[in-house]
Amino acid sequence: MVYKDLNTSPRILLGPGPSMVHPRVLRAMAHPLVGHLDPQFVYLMNEVQDLLRYVFQTKNEITFPLSGTGSAGMDAVVGNFVEPGDPVLVCVNGYFGERLCDMTKRYGGELTRIDKKWGEAFSPDEIRKALLKKNVKVVMIVMAETSTGVLQPLDKIAEIVHEFGALLLVDCVTSLGGVPVSVDSNGIDIAYSGTQKCISCPPGLSPITINDRARQVIHNRKTKNPSWYLDISLIECYWGNERTYHHTAPISMNYALRESLRLIQEEGLDLRFIRHKENAEFFWHCLSEIGLEPFVEEKYRLPSLTTVKVPVGVNGDEVTKKLLNEYNIEIAGGLGELKGKVWRVGLMGYSSSKENIVLLTGALSRILQNT
Amino acid sequence: MVYKDLNTSPRILLGPGPSMVHPRVLRAMAHPLVGHLDPQFVYLMNEVQDLLRYVFQTKNEITFPLSGTGSAGMDAVVGNFVEPGDPVLVCVNGYFGERLCDMTKRYGGELTRIDKKWGEAFSPDEIRKALLKKNVKVVMIVMAETSTGVLQPLDKIAEIVHEFGALLLVDCVTSLGGVPVSVDSNGIDIAYSGTQKCISCPPGLSPITINDRARQVIHNRKTKNPSWYLDISLIECYWGNERTYHHTAPISMNYALRESLRLIQEEGLDLRFIRHKENAEFFWHCLSEIGLEPFVEEKYRLPSLTTVKVPVGVNGDEVTKKLLNEYNIEIAGGLGELKGKVWRVGLMGYSSSKENIVLLTGALSRILQNT
Repeated sequence: MVYKDLNTSPRILLGPGPSMVHPRVLRAMAHPLVGHLDPQFVYLMNEVQDLLRYVFQTKNEITFPLSGTGSAGMDAVVGNFVEPGDPVLVCVNGYFGERLCDMTKRYGGELTRIDKKWGEAFSPDEIRKALLKKNVKVVMIVMAETSTGVLQPLDKIAEIVHEFGALLLVDCVTSLGGVPVSVDSNGIDIAYSGTQKCISCPPGLSPITINDRARQVIHNRKTKNPSWYLDISLIECYWGNERTYHHTAPISMNYALRESLRLIQEEGLDLRFIRHKENAEFFWHCLSEIGLEPFVEEKYRLPSLTTVKVPVGVNGDEVTKKLLNEYNIEIAGGLGELKGKVWRVGLMGYSSSKENIVLLTGALSRILQNT
Repeated sequence: MVYKDLNTSPRILLGPGPSMVHPRVLRAMAHPLVGHLDPQFVYLMNEVQDLLRYVFQTKNEITFPLSGTGSAGMDAVVGNFVEPGDPVLVCVNGYFGERLCDMTKRYGGELTRIDKKWGEAFSPDEIRKALLKKNVKVVMIVMAETSTGVLQPLDKIAEIVHEFGALLLVDCVTSLGGVPVSVDSNGIDIAYSGTQKCISCPPGLSPITINDRARQVIHNRKTKNPSWYLDISLIECYWGNERTYHHTAPISMNYALRESLRLIQEEGLDLRFIRHKENAEFFWHCLSEIGLEPFVEEKYRLPSLTTVKVPVGVNGDEVTKKLLNEYNIEIAGGLGELKGKVWRVGLMGYSSSKENIVLLTGALSRILQNT
């Protein structure tokens, strides 16, 4: 069999991830490798950690990318903080909250869940009520639900969680680098993310950050983490000052992550948040011009990912196929219970630009007129 | 703080990994991304699987790269095949055998181990004797011990393991693409590898292959795998015909893997094995010319990685530092109980060339003369 030269189409990536990757990041990927224990790579690891602290808005010493995708980060933090029998509260208002429940049960956690309709957010009071009923070790919540497009406000949540002596674990996969995560000022104890959303680095790494209080909890585990690969107590000795060999870090992916983070630093975090917000508002305005409407009420609407209602009588999948095949634009359909009901449009990182918005709504409008 | 342009030194990578990456693979890494559910990526996933079957020398349907480094593959296969209470036999003659024991215990396996001095290989009879004493579910063995430079012969081992009704799990991290792994004809049930050794793709993916008999064992598990991310029963539905979303595959890494595998196919697997063997023999000859000697007897010596005895009175670490700082050449010191006693030299994939050997031994000789 003949395997031809790599020759994929020049897609415009406006789905729920991966987002577009800046040419400078692509060039960094093509940079020749040094070894993973080379002093030059060790220096680069420090830079990556510093830059991640900037983006997470934290001083946490444990702040580094795990060598797997965002889902690896999710699995890692659940596995490191949930020992068999540990009581856990998961707030579920979408697909990724469900997944946190699945993971919690796999690690033997004693799960309590509170549920909210897909498309809605939790109030601090709802979390307080759940904690009054049942004391837990960890409260898990998704900040930016990629399945629904909801931005969960974090105000007062850490305060309540800490009042009950629990740890706050936050999924920042679709928020980090696009909306303020503010790990320290929000009182987040544990956070994880992916690189392929608002960071605009290719998928393959999962930035995490853990504060000292949570770190102690890992150090005081009664049992060993079943997964050696995702055991943060081992990985922290590789990324920390000890530099103890654990696994071979993905060199090229770390080159790419460093360059993506450098681009964020050059833009400035605050200006980047403003860009994401203004472009999202512009997109919502353009949607209304062509008779379309977001699924989530504006108050809880996520700037980095918008769920758009599929109009009655329109086959959503056919539209996404036409966008891809006729215009080279990728958006996605709904996930789980929103399948067929919404489109998911990501305006994340390098993808978040006025030109992409005008192009997408122009193409969408033409396709809908001909359906 | 200012983060400068990426500007690492042009290293010649002759350590235990990562190996040098061919310019075509680096270019593939810089290729713009498509989405992970894009039909074009799905097609590429099929190509990667076909090419991996060629390199593993197998017809196994489950043959794909896990989205983590080689260590993730190790963790995944142990976790998928070891349930709490399962009896497991691990053959330990180096660092990575030790790690298999650690992982087995973490997943609750009932561990039996047989030990051999570092630098030696197991005979089929030794495995038979162990199995006569204790029936197990899985026998784990390292084909190419990166810590010692031993190539474990696999003749008759599967036959014995199967006679006792067990599964044979083989670590092929430093063998795949450099020496014949021959999964099907060797009767291997489960194998995992990394991309950054003889495949000469950057680190970040872990190719695995599992035959139907072993696949059934996963399907008949009594308990769920604690790790959702490494649960092969879920991942096989993403890489298989169902294409069920699991996680976001590392797009660029898969571009790179495909190009590395394409280079292997163009060279031809048999010629590639000959190149690795001939270059290794040339290296061993060049070593003798400068008064150095391999640690492992020739019969069990691994072509892809040679452990070289550090002469009495020489500080091995100083030599590796000089090689790096004065000649831009990376080799490594010993691991575990061989620390300070050997150097580890990898001649893997694109790194395995006559020019690298002449350069390395020339530089080594000059450094040793001046010590």
